[in-house]
Amino acid sequence: MSKLPNVGTSIFTMMSQMANECNAINLSQGFPNFPVDKRLTDIVARLASENVHQYTPMSGFPPLLEKIAKLTQHSYQRVVKTKDEILITAGATEGIFATIQALVNANNEVIILDPSYDCYEAPILLSNAKPIRVALNNDFTPNWKKIKEATNENTKLIIINNPHNPTGKTWTKNDFVQLEKLVDSFPNLIVLSDEVYEYITFEEAHISIHHRPKLWNRSISVSSFGKSFHITGWKIGYVIAPEYLMTEIKKVHQFLVFSVNSISQVAISEYLDIVDVQSLGSFYQQKRDFFRNLLKETKLELLPCEGTYFQVASYANISNKDDLTFAKQLVTEIGVATIPISSFYANGTATKCIRFCFAKDDTTLIQAAERLMKL
Amino acid sequence: MSKLPNVGTSIFTMMSQMANECNAINLSQGFPNFPVDKRLTDIVARLASENVHQYTPMSGFPPLLEKIAKLTQHSYQRVVKTKDEILITAGATEGIFATIQALVNANNEVIILDPSYDCYEAPILLSNAKPIRVALNNDFTPNWKKIKEATNENTKLIIINNPHNPTGKTWTKNDFVQLEKLVDSFPNLIVLSDEVYEYITFEEAHISIHHRPKLWNRSISVSSFGKSFHITGWKIGYVIAPEYLMTEIKKVHQFLVFSVNSISQVAISEYLDIVDVQSLGSFYQQKRDFFRNLLKETKLELLPCEGTYFQVASYANISNKDDLTFAKQLVTEIGVATIPISSFYANGTATKCIRFCFAKDDTTLIQAAERLMKL
Ligand SMILES: CSCCC(=O)C(=O)O
Ligand SMILES: CSCCC(=O)C(=O)O
Repeated sequence: MSKLPNVGTSIFTMMSQMANECNAINLSQGFPNFPVDKRLTDIVARLASENVHQYTPMSGFPPLLEKIAKLTQHSYQRVVKTKDEILITAGATEGIFATIQALVNANNEVIILDPSYDCYEAPILLSNAKPIRVALNNDFTPNWKKIKEATNENTKLIIINNPHNPTGKTWTKNDFVQLEKLVDSFPNLIVLSDEVYEYITFEEAHISIHHRPKLWNRSISVSSFGKSFHITGWKIGYVIAPEYLMTEIKKVHQFLVFSVNSISQVAISEYLDIVDVQSLGSFYQQKRDFFRNLLKETKLELLPCEGTYFQVASYANISNKDDLTFAKQLVTEIGVATIPISSFYANGTATKCIRFCFAKDDTTLIQAAERLMKL
Repeated sequence: MSKLPNVGTSIFTMMSQMANECNAINLSQGFPNFPVDKRLTDIVARLASENVHQYTPMSGFPPLLEKIAKLTQHSYQRVVKTKDEILITAGATEGIFATIQALVNANNEVIILDPSYDCYEAPILLSNAKPIRVALNNDFTPNWKKIKEATNENTKLIIINNPHNPTGKTWTKNDFVQLEKLVDSFPNLIVLSDEVYEYITFEEAHISIHHRPKLWNRSISVSSFGKSFHITGWKIGYVIAPEYLMTEIKKVHQFLVFSVNSISQVAISEYLDIVDVQSLGSFYQQKRDFFRNLLKETKLELLPCEGTYFQVASYANISNKDDLTFAKQLVTEIGVATIPISSFYANGTATKCIRFCFAKDDTTLIQAAERLMKL
């Protein structure tokens, strides 16, 4: 009897594998294919021969914690306590897992807004708690009426993801006002805010829970250096939480990994002195515009993209197939790997949409578009 | 209400902190203080500018999986299925956490042999299961009578740690015969074998679960590159399990970290071609003998040390204080940080023993011994 009976090979693993087998262009799993900033790789090369190979403290390498506090103050005008409110994690995924396991008790409920990324459910089920799925509106904005109806005294967490994977939607001020009202009405409710694409927004600046002082004592944010610095393989991120919650999260983290890869922590703490993370939005906005422009020549219909490095497209006027079948056909016959949007719904809601990752060099995007012209 | 009400700052964190504050020699937390093999750090320096910065596959970098299969065959004459029976983890700790969370159901029991390392209990409690503490004999060998009495149909796992932290004890053939009998009598019972010090044994060669074909289908081993290659900060280890158990462990790992630091995986996969891990035992045996010899001049009484890089000593003929008080005095007054053995017992069993880590350069060990002469 499995504790996670419905978990199989993830769509990201499956599609990346199919891309390799079919020699297809891989726009499925989200990761950049361009080189990492030479300044960062030079730091790693230099550090290799230095004394950076033993355990860092459990919460993280102290200078890195300092730099994150500075970054948070600079980006969001929020002062966080370096030692008590920040935790370095083995990727955002570990931060999310540790947070859920630390805070969610057996039989609690946790609200997940669908479509959603796939890592939230397992730690809820492993806590013997109940994921409650609430669908976003058709335009992928939160449906506050439905969210309120789904919330009760037993709801421990609501998980939000902003900017949103897979749809690229971002939250408005009004969404936060609604969230603050919800949190006011339910004193046990905590917000887990997955903000791994926080620095990748376009026309509208990102609004973080860190911009909303009313939420500071009731929410946790999760960030990802993998996304911000094009190093998804490093598996390093961080969590910010008020001390009374962080105490519990650290208890789980201590026995989950104890500490995080030391070289990565030291390297990033140096890199944060020289990198301008605020320029990431315009970097990816160019890529988005370039890619959208290329796709204009195809029969695909592009949905809006306000943030992240993902572009959703509808193929409704090309095919009647379900999106998994369509995506498989696309990788095997056209040579472009994507992710079917139905895989972001727990109940497999039918869509006629697929997701492209545009964190790729221009040549790759041009080649992909050329292939997609054949549709 | 905390899910882990009894967890505080770990003794390792506390003692390392005190060592820093008191400018003491830190023989408490287990980590080497000598340089890492230049061949390994050269590999990292070279890889930094290569294409090694994005997600590896979920189970691990395929060439590293291959090398681990070869190493397992070479060390233990066991052939494991590269793709289905090996998982790279974010340190042994993550492997242990994922294994326990994957296999232990609510209300199951898990046997832990005390004294024991501190990371086993949290994932059991977070699974709403029950840790059952069985004391080792006075000479730190397993007490098979007590173990049998403690086992029942509801016991899901027995966790063994061989070579043993903190006592340096290793298992005999007869211990394995007893374990095989136990596993025969309880068809639901699985063995979780923490073998992170597998390559650090002295007069007697290490006996692994991998040497015991009867256990292969009923046990899981956890290994640590941190311990084997003097890189505790890298946080990289691996789990070997039969496919039917590995399937469940991977489900948890997928949502716990997804994958492990890519540079470390690629670097170690290259390093495994040139390193002779079998020489680690004699390397540490020299350190052990050197350190024991130095301590002969002190009033401390040394217990036997068959493996690991830890030496336990009794101070019974020096002081009547409890071991935590004694260890605190040692770090503040004498300037040597150690770990009190009582902290490895869930119920804080009184001991008059402390643990030294001798994974240090000779100068450090000499200086520590000089200070300990003052006792
Ligand atoms: C960890 S694989 C998935 C990567 C990702 O964030 C995505 O493609 O959505
Ligand atoms: C993760 S800190 C503890 C290191 C260790 O294995 C020990 O000192 O026993």
